[in-house]
Amino acid sequence: VINAGKSQHNEDQACCEVVFVEQRPSPRGWLSSREGSGELDGGRKGLYFHYWALFDGHAGSGAAVMASERLHLHICEQLRDLVEILQDPSPPPICLPHNTETDSADPNHMSYAEDHGEVLNDAVPQIHLEKAVSHESLVIGAIENAFKHMDDQIERERASQHLAGGCCALAAIYLMGKFYVANAGDSRAIIIRNGEIIPMSREFTPETERQRLQFLALLRPELLGKEFTHLEFPRRIQPKELGKKMLYRDQNMNGWAYKKIEEDDLKFPLIFGEGKKARMMATIGVTRGLGDHDLKVFSSNIHIKPFLSCFPEVRVYDLTQYEHCPDDVLVLGTDGLWDVTNDKEVAGVVMEVLTSYEPNDPCRYTMVAQELVVRSRGVLKERGWRLANDKLGSGDDISVFVIPL
Amino acid sequence: VINAGKSQHNEDQACCEVVFVEQRPSPRGWLSSREGSGELDGGRKGLYFHYWALFDGHAGSGAAVMASERLHLHICEQLRDLVEILQDPSPPPICLPHNTETDSADPNHMSYAEDHGEVLNDAVPQIHLEKAVSHESLVIGAIENAFKHMDDQIERERASQHLAGGCCALAAIYLMGKFYVANAGDSRAIIIRNGEIIPMSREFTPETERQRLQFLALLRPELLGKEFTHLEFPRRIQPKELGKKMLYRDQNMNGWAYKKIEEDDLKFPLIFGEGKKARMMATIGVTRGLGDHDLKVFSSNIHIKPFLSCFPEVRVYDLTQYEHCPDDVLVLGTDGLWDVTNDKEVAGVVMEVLTSYEPNDPCRYTMVAQELVVRSRGVLKERGWRLANDKLGSGDDISVFVIPL
Repeated sequence: VINAGKSQHNEDQACCEVVFVEQRPSPRGWLSSREGSGELDGGRKGLYFHYWALFDGHAGSGAAVMASERLHLHICEQLRDLVEILQDPSPPPICLPHNTETDSADPNHMSYAEDHGEVLNDAVPQIHLEKAVSHESLVIGAIENAFKHMDDQIERERASQHLAGGCCALAAIYLMGKFYVANAGDSRAIIIRNGEIIPMSREFTPETERQRLQFLALLRPELLGKEFTHLEFPRRIQPKELGKKMLYRDQNMNGWAYKKIEEDDLKFPLIFGEGKKARMMATIGVTRGLGDHDLKVFSSNIHIKPFLSCFPEVRVYDLTQYEHCPDDVLVLGTDGLWDVTNDKEVAGVVMEVLTSYEPNDPCRYTMVAQELVVRSRGVLKERGWRLANDKLGSGDDISVFVIPL
Repeated sequence: VINAGKSQHNEDQACCEVVFVEQRPSPRGWLSSREGSGELDGGRKGLYFHYWALFDGHAGSGAAVMASERLHLHICEQLRDLVEILQDPSPPPICLPHNTETDSADPNHMSYAEDHGEVLNDAVPQIHLEKAVSHESLVIGAIENAFKHMDDQIERERASQHLAGGCCALAAIYLMGKFYVANAGDSRAIIIRNGEIIPMSREFTPETERQRLQFLALLRPELLGKEFTHLEFPRRIQPKELGKKMLYRDQNMNGWAYKKIEEDDLKFPLIFGEGKKARMMATIGVTRGLGDHDLKVFSSNIHIKPFLSCFPEVRVYDLTQYEHCPDDVLVLGTDGLWDVTNDKEVAGVVMEVLTSYEPNDPCRYTMVAQELVVRSRGVLKERGWRLANDKLGSGDDISVFVIPL
């Protein structure tokens, strides 16, 4: 991490851990019925995951600090019920009995029409099969719910712990041969494999989530407090333009069309601005993350949180599917890095630095991370921090993990 | 088209037209202010587009027939106000005056904070720029709104015209050097260029649109009529399973997790089934299209239409960006084709048939379409229509356009 000097305490926070997930004790029920399998040794049953995460705080470091201390514990907690299921190669059970009775659901009892005592016809097909659910999707579900529990904990403890602000969260979990990369916010992860760039996340901003946000605003107009319109306009409309035709788009549209300006269109657009300057409700530039429970529109009583999602998008990379060389890495970075250094430049630095060290030098990955951060910060000149190309360096905290595959 | 014999009148309908878009007369205002430009000749001002579309009807052919007769006219209507703007290389105007007064908006008046007489700070960045809107995105907006107007017309005229059912709509519009491919439903378009497959659409089904549908159901539970739950389960839950733990996912999740089964979970899931058998509200397998205004859940008063979207996704292919050979084509097909013949097989047939004709034989593209349809139908044997690999042929109407690029 490099602190940009915006705040005394880093707004970027990070965590790197090896976590042991101990199977939850289960005196009876599904687990005991399988106890004779002998797959696991007599000690404490469980599994390990490796964990790296970056938290880019805003409006204070409180949420970022707490998330960096706890998110992996929430992931561990969500995985505790899955230890035996994940280690069993057979498909995960759809239903777990809560007591000793055996699971005897009739898989043929499944049609809406049957329930209603009607004769089946073409419009109501009979569906007999169970949907297959993979082990991988259980891990994804566990990570998704862990983010939700983390957000709930920040909400509960924000008063007593004096937690200010919110944070983006980007986490990489290595479990049973696969990397799970979970992202909520505008940090980014890429894999560089044999010089090729494989995106492992996408950014969640007012622009990328426009249609979700506009849809919510349309269905729950009371959340806009009469100050905002759910329509997007390319610029603010002035009262004297009433009756003219203006370009707009709504929650259904990706293109633009003209509409006659009405009174309601004079409100401020829910989504406004472009690129790094895009804001939701004129306030925030990221639309997923943790915290922000008290965030309101400037000098108003309109809450932002209902529009924010704490759920990450999780992408999976199966390490066993590819051959990897010592120069193949997973790079995690906050927007302080990516705002000034693009994927290709990062891949260039990775290859340049790694090839300048012996393949078995344990420091080479650390040196890449350091080089990425230093280059993105730039050098202090008379006209501020400047990059090698004389453009302005990142004015933001910069954090990077470089993880060999 | 091959009629599968499910209905006397084809449920698949098609249209292929060259359409002239005549500029809307505008005696005063923005258009007259530019009249001296002399870009256009003295005759009727306008532009042409080429148009191909497939409409796959369900529960009757009425909506499909009407859409095949009218959708291109709605697209034409939406484009009429854009004729001059699209032909002008300068960026489209953000605002059009409705009278002779000139556009004099102050681009610096745009900040939420300024409006509220507050001092600016970090949280409320000042945004001064207009968003750039491309010509292309105006065409996309015009097509999107044309689909909406088409759907509205079906709603208005369904009683007097005896229009039954609904339809998927897939349209390819060639305008000013670009193909715009608009899809609402489960038809599909691909480009085959130099043997490479370029997807030009994606399907909209209960599975691909699950999160949008669950989000709507969560925010508007009254639309579910107490019969459905917005949660997804891998199979139907039985009353005696109350209290057990079942896999589920909600509108935020892509993975699965276990939850304790409660009373409310015994309702039928909004989204149920897998692949071609996935249904929304146990009724319909496509979630975008035209019509279906009267569609209800079997033997209930629950309307399906609020969950359906009539808006297409529009993808753009710029013909001027690539070199094309006479074997490069755009293929449009209804699901009757794609259910039994995948992208790669279609590309194989295209190449096989095209190379068996002289490059300048005008029939060669028609022969490809015919071959695709006939192969997907199969041959009538004792055990029904069979494909070359002895699998069952498509039991659905099959329609294909093969369009040289």
